[in-house]
This record gives sequence, structure tokens and C-alpha cells, in this order.
Amino acid sequence: MKFATLPNGTPDGALHVVSRDLTRSTSADDVATLQSLMENWDTHAPALQTQYEALNSGGGDPFDQSAALAPLPRAWQWLDGSAYDSHGDLMQKVFKMDPTPKGRPLMYQGMSHEFLPATADVPFPSEDDGIDFEGEFGIICDAVPMGTDAQTANVHIRLLLQINDWSLRTLAPIEMKTGFGWVQAKPACSVAPVAVTPDELGDAWRDARVDLPLQVDLNGAHFGAADGYHMSFGFDELIAHAARTRILVAGTIIGSGTVSNENFREIGSSCLAERRGIEMLDTGTPQTPYMAFGDHVRMECRTREGDPIFGAISQKVVQAS
Amino acid sequence: MKFATLPNGTPDGALHVVSRDLTRSTSADDVATLQSLMENWDTHAPALQTQYEALNSGGGDPFDQSAALAPLPRAWQWLDGSAYDSHGDLMQKVFKMDPTPKGRPLMYQGMSHEFLPATADVPFPSEDDGIDFEGEFGIICDAVPMGTDAQTANVHIRLLLQINDWSLRTLAPIEMKTGFGWVQAKPACSVAPVAVTPDELGDAWRDARVDLPLQVDLNGAHFGAADGYHMSFGFDELIAHAARTRILVAGTIIGSGTVSNENFREIGSSCLAERRGIEMLDTGTPQTPYMAFGDHVRMECRTREGDPIFGAISQKVVQAS
Repeated sequence: MKFATLPNGTPDGALHVVSRDLTRSTSADDVATLQSLMENWDTHAPALQTQYEALNSGGGDPFDQSAALAPLPRAWQWLDGSAYDSHGDLMQKVFKMDPTPKGRPLMYQGMSHEFLPATADVPFPSEDDGIDFEGEFGIICDAVPMGTDAQTANVHIRLLLQINDWSLRTLAPIEMKTGFGWVQAKPACSVAPVAVTPDELGDAWRDARVDLPLQVDLNGAHFGAADGYHMSFGFDELIAHAARTRILVAGTIIGSGTVSNENFREIGSSCLAERRGIEMLDTGTPQTPYMAFGDHVRMECRTREGDPIFGAISQKVVQAS
Repeated sequence: MKFATLPNGTPDGALHVVSRDLTRSTSADDVATLQSLMENWDTHAPALQTQYEALNSGGGDPFDQSAALAPLPRAWQWLDGSAYDSHGDLMQKVFKMDPTPKGRPLMYQGMSHEFLPATADVPFPSEDDGIDFEGEFGIICDAVPMGTDAQTANVHIRLLLQINDWSLRTLAPIEMKTGFGWVQAKPACSVAPVAVTPDELGDAWRDARVDLPLQVDLNGAHFGAADGYHMSFGFDELIAHAARTRILVAGTIIGSGTVSNENFREIGSSCLAERRGIEMLDTGTPQTPYMAFGDHVRMECRTREGDPIFGAISQKVVQAS
């Protein structure tokens, strides 16, 4: 199934079922919001599946990706991992940080009261903060009991997302050094317009990972196409990590961290910091600047056949008023 | 004004106005929830003030602190500071951490989808995790624009809280070392039953700080009574720090961090980690154990005249089922 949230004047918007090819949608009137669906998945899923299949056969209204809100315009919890070792190892090398021990996922709790639409301009206070994108995948889970293990966690993965975790790189190391994690360095994320059930990926949903490339373009030029599979921990393991000492509320979003592959020199990166890190290793100084107001980033993950999945994130950064 | 949230079968409960002496309450039917009040403070405050004054003259229903939920049973955002240098400096000394630079508040984003009632048993998965309390003060703000400075931030401080920020000390340094902040080490907080407007503190609300002692008792014995005033940054400055690169959603809760005073040897502490730190400095090894299942902690802040303000947190830790 595929879902989008369209604006209706409320903070949570109106849940819509979207056709597989993202061309049409119908309102999911009985469920109202995606948050409500996450709280009552088993109750609502069968009727929504029927509605989805009917929509794929025809009918519905034209679906305009640029009109959609984030699938969850706000969430009770956003926990972002950093599960791609090739990214983490590079960052540690460049910034001469202590290597973090392997065998344990990295995760922080981020701002969840606002997720930005995929095509809205993104306001930042200053270019001096080092404006960077981070292309990621994410999951939305239903309620997860405390102490759930990775194997059991799988059934709680109800929807997949494609996310841009906006990051302010000048502020990030200052906050990281305190051990407290990021507040200023991690403002609201943007999310691609369509959330999909894992079965929509077919064989490309594998070991609780998205085995597909995330195409990233900066100002219209190819920037990276790293594959999502190479997580050192799958989303099932990230859920188990998060649920070790807490209940995960239905509608919790968990992120993969910046998608990265070991062959980043060939395949490119999903954030500027990684490319700058490579440049620092190679030449001693970064060449690629962080984003300036007016710069544009586009991110999209399609099937190996080229069919759309989540729709595209396509955004311009602007000066906050 | 004083407010409590009583259970009504919904996640957010029902907002009630509580008499100054915490003996009686009346339902705030027009507002419904504390979150709704935070979103529409100016609209609702005048009528609630009238209702509060009438209640202080008599009438209403008996108010039972132990029946109340947390004032906000869930919140869109919980940002906890660590604003008492005497605590931070001691912890850094004991754990041989790099000193964090002064001049910049410490703050992390914590779990906000559940705040526990003040008298409910608190379930933890294991005593081996190093179960500790942290007595704190907090504020709830209405919507704060991005870039708000400390001076302007003051008007956004609508309510004050008394909080127990439960902490798992065995897990905390592991997570802190990554720079990502805490997920496993910081499960749900508990909150005293009554939220109060700053004017309820009279002169004891000073420089955006609570100038009153927080009385902490462990298993019925006095443990500490540190004064809330000695924050290196007031709540106004903590708001400005948090709002540097993001809008703060109405109903954001910001915490002070563990209340601590420089004379902690005389006045005691608001968490076990601090007392253990003192013991480690004095004797090389901590003497005071972390909490065991069945242990009880009580926290209350009263006026200098001994009148109740927030009510009391009074809780037993238990094994999670």
C-alpha cells in the first residue's frame, strides 16, 4: 500500500491512499490520519488494502506530489540512527574523533513536532551554520513493547519513508563534543510525499533494509546514488535498540542515517559532509561548499525498473524571515 | 494559576484548575487539555483566571494528587538542559571527561511521548542499568519563533513544572561517548501533578529561575534540598538556545537538569550519581548504590512558608513485566 497526507487545515492533515504509480489518490475517510492508522493498523489495514487495489485498477483523483504534506506532518518520536559504517568511519577519520565501538547502533532523538513537506522551501537562519542535507531511509512502526528483540521487531515495521535529515555542520561538532547530542544542529527533517508498506519494494526489502539506490542531485547535477542495503544494523535491530528501556509509541519514526557505501568515491554521497570529508583526506581541505540560499537538492529512490516508490524530495534552501 | 490533568480515558486527559492550596479542583471544560491551553493561551487565560480565583474562594471537588496524570501526559517536545555547573563539573571530574566549554547551555532532546504520573510505580527492565532519579524544575512554553532571544523568551514561559528525569547510569556514559546523546539511558520522566504559572512563586521566581529548595527523600530519609536558583543559564536563555535554529512548538517542555548547589556536601544532592561522585572523590569508590526494585523516591518543592506548589512526586521503582 502507498499513503500520502494532504492538507485539510489541521496539523495532521488527511490520510489518502495513493496508487502504485503515484498518479492518483483517494481519501481514506474512515481512518482520517496516518497517526491514527499507526495506532490501529490491524483494524484499518484490510479495508485500505481493498481500497488500494481498487485504486490501482482505476478511478480516484489526480495525485499531485507537490501538494502533499510529510506523510506524518508531526510525530511523537523521531529516533535517527547512523547505521552506515562507511559514513561514520570516514567522519571519525576526518574529524579525528574516537572511533565508536562497533556492535551497538548509534542513535539520537531528534525534533519530531514538525516534518517538512517534500517540496517546500526550507528556511534556515544563516548560511554560516553549514547547511547540509542527509539522504536517508526510515520506517514508521506501530506500538512496540519495551524489550522487543530484533526478530520480533520486524512485524512492527509498517511503513517505509525516504527522508532528508537537514543538518547544520558548523554547529554539529560543538554539540557532539558535549555528549548530549544535537539540538541546534538538527532542525526539522523533510520527508518524501509517499509512505509505503515494505511489500511494495518486493525483493528490494531485504534483511529489514532498503536494497535500492538513493539518487541525490545538487542544483540539478548528479551528486550520489548510494545503495540503502549496507546498514551495519537493519531497521529491526534499530527498533530493538530503541525499545531496550522504553515503549515505542505507535507512529515512531526511525531513520537509517545518511545512506553511504564503501565505494563512495565512485558512487557518490548522500550528504555534503561526506564529500567534503573525502576532499579533506585527499587534499587536506574541503572543496565543496555547504549549501547557499537558493541552492536546490533533489532525492529520489526508484525501483530497479525505474518505477516511483516514495516520490521525490525536491527543495530549495532559503533565508528564514 | 494552577492546573492538573485528570484521567478521562484519552491520552491527553482532562484539564482541571486546582486551588492554590491543592485541596480542590474544577474541570476546565472550555479548554479540554493542557496542550490545547498552550496552543491558545491568550484566548483561554482570562476565563481560567476568573475560574481560579472563584475556586480559591471555595467550591469545586476535592483534589487528589495521586489521581492526577502528568500535567502534559505527552508532549511534542522535551528538551532537557544541564544548567547547574556544580553538578556538571563534579560529574566531569569524577568520570575524567573533557570539561564542556562554559558560555553555552548543555541540552539534549528526550523522550516526550509519555510523561509518567507523580505517584505511579515506575517499571524498569533491570537493576543492572543503574536506576537513578534526577530532581529538576521545568517550564512549558507556548509557541516560540525561531531566533527568539532570551529577553523575549520570558513571555513564552507559561507554566512551571517539577520533574523527575529518570536516568540509567550504566547506559549513560556508553551513549554519551558516541556524542549522539541518550536514548536508552533516558526513559520516560515523571512529573509532579500540578503545573503553575510563574506568578504563583512570587519573589521566588527570579531571573527565570526557581529560587526554592527541592526536597528529595530516598526511602523515607532526607537525601537533598538543593535550591533551584543556581542555574548558569535561566529558562529564558535555555529557550533562546533551543530556538536558535527551530520553532518551538506550543507545549514544549524545557528542563533545568538535576538541581545542584556548590555546597552539595552540606545540602545534599538531587540524584544518586552526584552523591556517588562525591564518594568517589572522597574515598575512591562509590558507597551509595543505585536504586533497587522496591526503592522509593519523593520530591517536593514548597514555598518558603511551607505551602504546597506543584504537589509531590512519590514513586516506587519496580521490575518491568
